[in-house]
Amino acid sequence: MNAIPAIPTIDDQALGQALRLAIDQKTKPQGSLGRLETLAQQIGLILGSTTPRLEQPQLVVFAADHGVAARGVSAYPSSVTWQMVENFLAGGAAVSVLARQHGLALTVVDCGVMHDFAPRPGLVVTKTAQGSADCTRGPAMTAEQMHAALDAGVALVRTLPGNVLLLGEMGIGNTSAAALLMSRLTGEPLAACVGRGTGLDDAGLARKLGVLEEALALHAQAVAPLDVLMALGGLELATMTGAVLEAASQRRVIVVDGFITTAAVAVAAALSPAVLQRCVFAHCSAESGHARWLQRLGVQPLLDLGLRLGEGSGAALAWPLLDSASRLLCDMASFASAGVSEKAV
Amino acid sequence: MNAIPAIPTIDDQALGQALRLAIDQKTKPQGSLGRLETLAQQIGLILGSTTPRLEQPQLVVFAADHGVAARGVSAYPSSVTWQMVENFLAGGAAVSVLARQHGLALTVVDCGVMHDFAPRPGLVVTKTAQGSADCTRGPAMTAEQMHAALDAGVALVRTLPGNVLLLGEMGIGNTSAAALLMSRLTGEPLAACVGRGTGLDDAGLARKLGVLEEALALHAQAVAPLDVLMALGGLELATMTGAVLEAASQRRVIVVDGFITTAAVAVAAALSPAVLQRCVFAHCSAESGHARWLQRLGVQPLLDLGLRLGEGSGAALAWPLLDSASRLLCDMASFASAGVSEKAV
Repeated sequence: MNAIPAIPTIDDQALGQALRLAIDQKTKPQGSLGRLETLAQQIGLILGSTTPRLEQPQLVVFAADHGVAARGVSAYPSSVTWQMVENFLAGGAAVSVLARQHGLALTVVDCGVMHDFAPRPGLVVTKTAQGSADCTRGPAMTAEQMHAALDAGVALVRTLPGNVLLLGEMGIGNTSAAALLMSRLTGEPLAACVGRGTGLDDAGLARKLGVLEEALALHAQAVAPLDVLMALGGLELATMTGAVLEAASQRRVIVVDGFITTAAVAVAAALSPAVLQRCVFAHCSAESGHARWLQRLGVQPLLDLGLRLGEGSGAALAWPLLDSASRLLCDMASFASAGVSEKAV
Repeated sequence: MNAIPAIPTIDDQALGQALRLAIDQKTKPQGSLGRLETLAQQIGLILGSTTPRLEQPQLVVFAADHGVAARGVSAYPSSVTWQMVENFLAGGAAVSVLARQHGLALTVVDCGVMHDFAPRPGLVVTKTAQGSADCTRGPAMTAEQMHAALDAGVALVRTLPGNVLLLGEMGIGNTSAAALLMSRLTGEPLAACVGRGTGLDDAGLARKLGVLEEALALHAQAVAPLDVLMALGGLELATMTGAVLEAASQRRVIVVDGFITTAAVAVAAALSPAVLQRCVFAHCSAESGHARWLQRLGVQPLLDLGLRLGEGSGAALAWPLLDSASRLLCDMASFASAGVSEKAV
């Protein structure tokens, strides 16, 4: 990519204290809003305000196909990627319904789908290839493809209004790419990273693990974050990584969905750790490696609902909690303003 | 009360199968929406439809004072009850902010607050007493007071539009009443039921436990659900119990908030177990007995965010998930309608 955006550590202790004080003066027992209080504090620190308003939230679904899907690592054929992109745009997918419910602007990015889409509102095409290459036979992307994808992610975020980016994705085969990234970035054994994706049975899961072991062995030399991404990742993961870096640089609030979006955030955080300060993890996925990955990143998700759909559906479901945290901080009365007695004992 | 409303068991197996089929034909891997799928199924069964629309959700905050509060069982003085009622009505409390966010109609019911409120929109006064009596010295309510409160809850729900009731409460001392109800209704030792409420320190917690042991011993004969409620409960708990019974009888969806609202639902369920089929448990409270009580009732909450505020704040925070479940069921495309390929492996 042209250059990794600068992402300084947020370390404004005066603001942190002002936020804590503001939260504690609200008309409620201290700490009684639990996780919403730490969330409000985080949002205030990201946006640099004791009255942080979340504006024009953007849900972006990054879509691409994966060469490794031809090795039978998914329960669905690759054609489902483009079919689901059409479904997102037609308004019939889960994420479409949830975006409508919450007034989230929905953009679908063709980062590398094996299909040519007719242009239409809500669709952005950035692809340089019809899918990544099979990572069991060579790198998933060329260096040029990866850098173009990273730059496209940066450029995309620069066109989007608002101060919140919600991450979504679609790509048959992308739990394989994410599992490979997890194993290489964290050092966890591949078996702890590989799950059933869209619904593999036991035999399918064993086949997936075997195929991915080949990929990991082939790319034993890939260790640096962008080398790992190029060797094992997908085009939507590279584009999303660029988008995350740019959004973090702009101090937007980033809402991370499930296993796949965590992969892009993990690459970005490996390049620039302060990315994680800007990230709210929406939920813990039922995809088997996700809980462990969140633990390794030292983060706590908001929801635990056994979701494993992707698309940004978990990010959209968690969105109202971020909105609530912001509104509680901005709009609740204080003990003084409401004339409510404080703690007596 | 005049008569416990009839609450038949919902046992429509054909509808259950139709709902399962409808959910499985949506454009997503089977089961991939996790808890949202079982929630959609439950909402469909309650409302008797494969396209259940949630309409005009009503958040009701039942408020009352408790004689036992004079024994020093709370970190806040009883005057906070009426001050917070004013705060709810003025729009400055957490539940006010959340109700505005989600378009929930908010009604505050004075079931027995030690204060005379000026009449205004959104406030309903049903009280027959300025607070319950101290349950360590006698029954919390007379039989007349309890039955009047139960009937007031029934009558209130009959005046409310819509098909969803979200439960909230306010009452300094009401974690004490709820803990007593939990211990007597479940047989759990009182120490497993008593928590810090609005924020007692260790000494305060020990004092609360001691006071409540007195109450439990005094009312050793109270075993039948309404006897337990009369001896140990509060006026808001009795009114809420009536409201829950009526809402369940009408097959409204009932959204249960935290520890206190669980107490009212537990009394209603002890009278008529099919009440629980109509209940969605919003969250697991940080109040120490709540997790165990939910387990004893055999129910799973949606959220686990360390909340312990009450007011209906947890019910309001969970509301968008119910709305999502309904919309996903009603509005998502099927594989056939969207032209998406089904599972291949």
